[in-house]
Order: sequence, then C-alpha cells, then structure tokens
Amino acid sequence: MLLTIIDFLAVISFTISGVLVALKTKLDAFGILIIGFITATGGGTIRDLLLGVRPVFWLIDTSIVYTIICTTILAIVFRKYLKILNKSLFLFDTLGLALYTISGIEKSLIINSNPVICIAIGIITACFGGVLRDILCQRIPVIFRKEIYATTCMLGGITYFGLHQISPQNSLVINSLSILVIIIIRILAVKYKLKLPYLYKS
Amino acid sequence: MLLTIIDFLAVISFTISGVLVALKTKLDAFGILIIGFITATGGGTIRDLLLGVRPVFWLIDTSIVYTIICTTILAIVFRKYLKILNKSLFLFDTLGLALYTISGIEKSLIINSNPVICIAIGIITACFGGVLRDILCQRIPVIFRKEIYATTCMLGGITYFGLHQISPQNSLVINSLSILVIIIIRILAVKYKLKLPYLYKS
Amino acid sequence: MLLTIIDFLAVISFTISGVLVALKTKLDAFGILIIGFITATGGGTIRDLLLGVRPVFWLIDTSIVYTIICTTILAIVFRKYLKILNKSLFLFDTLGLALYTISGIEKSLIINSNPVICIAIGIITACFGGVLRDILCQRIPVIFRKEIYATTCMLGGITYFGLHQISPQNSLVINSLSILVIIIIRILAVKYKLKLPYLYKS
Repeated sequence: MLLTIIDFLAVISFTISGVLVALKTKLDAFGILIIGFITATGGGTIRDLLLGVRPVFWLIDTSIVYTIICTTILAIVFRKYLKILNKSLFLFDTLGLALYTISGIEKSLIINSNPVICIAIGIITACFGGVLRDILCQRIPVIFRKEIYATTCMLGGITYFGLHQISPQNSLVINSLSILVIIIIRILAVKYKLKLPYLYKS
Repeated sequence: MLLTIIDFLAVISFTISGVLVALKTKLDAFGILIIGFITATGGGTIRDLLLGVRPVFWLIDTSIVYTIICTTILAIVFRKYLKILNKSLFLFDTLGLALYTISGIEKSLIINSNPVICIAIGIITACFGGVLRDILCQRIPVIFRKEIYATTCMLGGITYFGLHQISPQNSLVINSLSILVIIIIRILAVKYKLKLPYLYKS
Repeated sequence: MLLTIIDFLAVISFTISGVLVALKTKLDAFGILIIGFITATGGGTIRDLLLGVRPVFWLIDTSIVYTIICTTILAIVFRKYLKILNKSLFLFDTLGLALYTISGIEKSLIINSNPVICIAIGIITACFGGVLRDILCQRIPVIFRKEIYATTCMLGGITYFGLHQISPQNSLVINSLSILVIIIIRILAVKYKLKLPYLYKS
C-alpha cells in the first residue's frame, strides 16, 4: 500500500519533470503530453524490453496512463505555480529515483541474480526515462553530465545487495533501507556538493 | 486486398518522407536507405516491441523490405521530380497515418481492450517512425511541434471506439470510417489552419 | 575458442570507441561508462529485441559487462595513450564490425532465412551501437555520413550468402572468409579512398 502511494508519487514527479523540460523546449500541448509520458514510463519500458517481460507494464496497469494524462493537464494549467513547488518536486523526483532503482533490481533478479547486472537494470529503470526525454528535446542527457544522479542509484543498489548478503529474509527492511540510502545521498549531494544539478548549462 | 494496396502505398509514402529528410540532412546513399527504412518501419517496430509481438513484422513479411529498398532507389534517382509529387505524397502520407493508426489500435486490442491504451499504441505506430527519423537527423521531432499530426490520429482513434460502441460487428465500416475521419481532419487542418505543417522551422 | 577471443577484442574495441567519443563530448566518468556500455552492446541489444530473443544477451553472459567496465576504467586512466593505439584500435574495430555482422546474420537465420533480412540484421548488429553512441552524444551518426562503414558489412553479408550457396556445409570456411572480406574491404577503403573515416567533420 505504501509502495503503491510512492509509486504513484514517482510517476507524478517524473511526468512533471518531463512537462517542465517540454515547456522549455516550446513544444505544443500534445508534445508535452508525449514527453511527460515517455519520461515517466521510458525507464520501465526499456527495463521490460531488456528483461523480455511482455507486454510492457503500462499496457497492463492502465492507472499509470490515466495518472500521467491528469498530471500533464494539471501541470500545463498550473505551470506558473510549478516553480514554487520546486522543493516538493525534488523530493518526489528523488523518491521516484529510489523506488525505480529498487523495483528495477527486484524485477531483474527473476532473470539473473548477478548484482552488477541487476544494479545496471536498476539504473536504467531509474534514469533512462530522463535520457529519452533529453534526446527527444535535443539536450545532452543530464545523467551523462552529472555523476551524482546515476551514481546515487548505484550506491543504493550496492546497499541493497550488501544488506541482502547479511540477512536475505527481511526484504521489507532491505527495500526500505536501500530507498532511504538513495534519498539521503541525493539530498546531501544536492545540498553540499552540487546545489542544483539541473541548472548545469548544456 | 484494398487494405494491402493502402498498406503498400503507406510504406512507399513513409519511405519517401524519410528519403526527403535524409536528402536535406546531406546523408550518403546508404544513410538515406537506412533513414527511409526506419521511417517506414519504426512505428510498427516499436508497437511490436511494446506489445511483445515477436519477431517484429518486417522480419516475417519480407515484401515490406523490398518495397522500401526499391522506393528508396527510385526516390534517389528521381529526387528532382519529388517536389512535383508533393500533393500526391501528402495524400499517401495521410493514408499511411490513418492506416497505421487503425492497424496499431487493432493489434493492441489483442493485449488490452482499454481505449486509451489502444489509441496510444495507434499514435505510436503512426507517428514514431517519423520521430526516429527526426532524432537520427538531429531535428526536434515534427509531431512535438505541430499538434495536428498526432491529434488527428487521436481523433481517428476516438471515432474508432465510438463506432465500436454503437455497432461492434461491422469492423469493415468502423475501420473505413475511422480512416476517413483521419484523412478528412488532416486535409482540413492543412488546408485551413496550418497550410503546410512540414514547413515549420525547427 | 578463436571466436571467443575475437568477440572479446570486439567488445573492448567498441567500448574504447565509445569512451573516445564520450571524452570528446566532455561527459563525466559515469556518463563515459554508460556510453562505452551502449556502444559495445547496443547493436546486439537491438538485434535481440527485433528477433524476439529474450532476455538480451548481456543479461545472460555477465563476462561482457565486466569486460566493458574494466575496459572503460583502463581507457579513462590511460586516455592520453589511446591516440598512440589508434592503429590497433582500428584493427579491433574492424574485427568487431566483421564479427558482429556475421553473428547478427547467423542469429537471424533462426527466424528468417531471407538473405536481405539477415544482412539487414547483420548491419544493425554491427553499426547500431555506434548509432546510439552518436545520438546520445548529439552527433549525426557516422554511418549515415560515411557509406563505407555499413556498406562493408553489406558486402560481407553478400559474401556469406554467396559462399553459402556454393557449399552450405562448411560453416567455418564461410564465416572465416566473410569476416576476412569485411576486414580487407575496410582496410582498403580506409587506406585508398577515405584515409580516416572518423575525421569527417560532423
């Protein structure tokens, strides 16, 4: 239940991050919706394609599609107020990053138990929606410029497998702690080292 | 039989649209062929990957590949005359857009009967060949700039499911009318509202 | 055994070609690793997705992932000396191109025996890692600018099916000769016609 709410918040925040980039690129309403959709679902779609899960997740769980459409419409209508929300958006985005990483790792464990492979899939799940968004809007992908974004996911993944080594049974504890590690590292990284990673001129 | 001819015309017109963009980007002969190929098959390929249909359609139906190769060679040889054909090209392109949308909807109905999902797949089938073409040639995808392209597909999809609600049996009538709606909206949009959507400076 | 060594060399050389482009694009360490990874595995990944092979090859054969990570780290550390290696890099790259083409053809023969389809898949396997690399680094893909790259793969594919027609049993001879044809054509092309294809201003 808690995971469903976090998942919901993650989709919303990833959609909004897509809408914000699309607005800057001066796309029309439909283009903004498509970019929002791709930002929110792209990472998970590539994950499902690589793992051979078919059809991809958003073809089965329709609520994701409705969430994205509603979020995009609300974000376009209230676009002037989005900047005020910057802080909560960052929190959602970080939550999304953490949750997508762990969900990617858990999904890939079914295919291959190798930690390096699983962490790679986790990073792809968390980061490649943003990569597709940046390619479509003709920007050099942010994650290739700012180490801390993908690195945070990697550290979270290492935490996951480290805890798994110690006590494999407590999957709830492992998941919660790994997600927490990603969130804390990201917040610290943004606060002390990079201030605002999105402001990097590209 | 009629559908096969329309499908054939759609592949030709999408290939030519790829060749025209590739010529402008000053690619060599082989690059032009690859762009023509990706423009014609890209949307359907992404559709098949998302739906989990494997292998993708053009690996089975080889005639599509031959059609694209011949069209590209003829288009390169007669490239000076392509501008005269502009009007018929627009008709083929519109036909292709309409047919690809409906074929995408029908293929996705096998996986998920939700209209929103099916229309999304229809739009992807019709538009993402062009999106890939534009990404590879380093242009901001046209559909993100001109609402009318993808919106037309969406309206055709809504027509499809509206008619389906009224009389689910007449699939021939539903298909024909939906295709007709897309064609008419696109022609009206280009004639009255946007004149030439492709001329939008990107 | 010989094939395993060549495969190993091919992954290394494709990774290094990715690292070199990523260094020029001024990506950070993690971005360089991702570009190296995508350059080395992208073509084979798209091949597996199109053919419906699941999961994709590098999820099963973990040694590829380790090879890429080690190569990237070494390439970053010794980046100043990479230019001296230019000649051996070109040889590895050509080896990789040849091997990937033939492995793509052989994998697609399982799905469809049509030579045109198989050669298309061979070209995609050999060239699309580089295409993804160039898209992610915002360059117009090299293969769309320099005919000789993809054309070489095509000629190797034609050799493959020509020899297959003459004596279908000797798969070792067919493979070796086709690989040799690609290597010789590429070396001759670079030596006499194009000198350094990578230097083409994009």
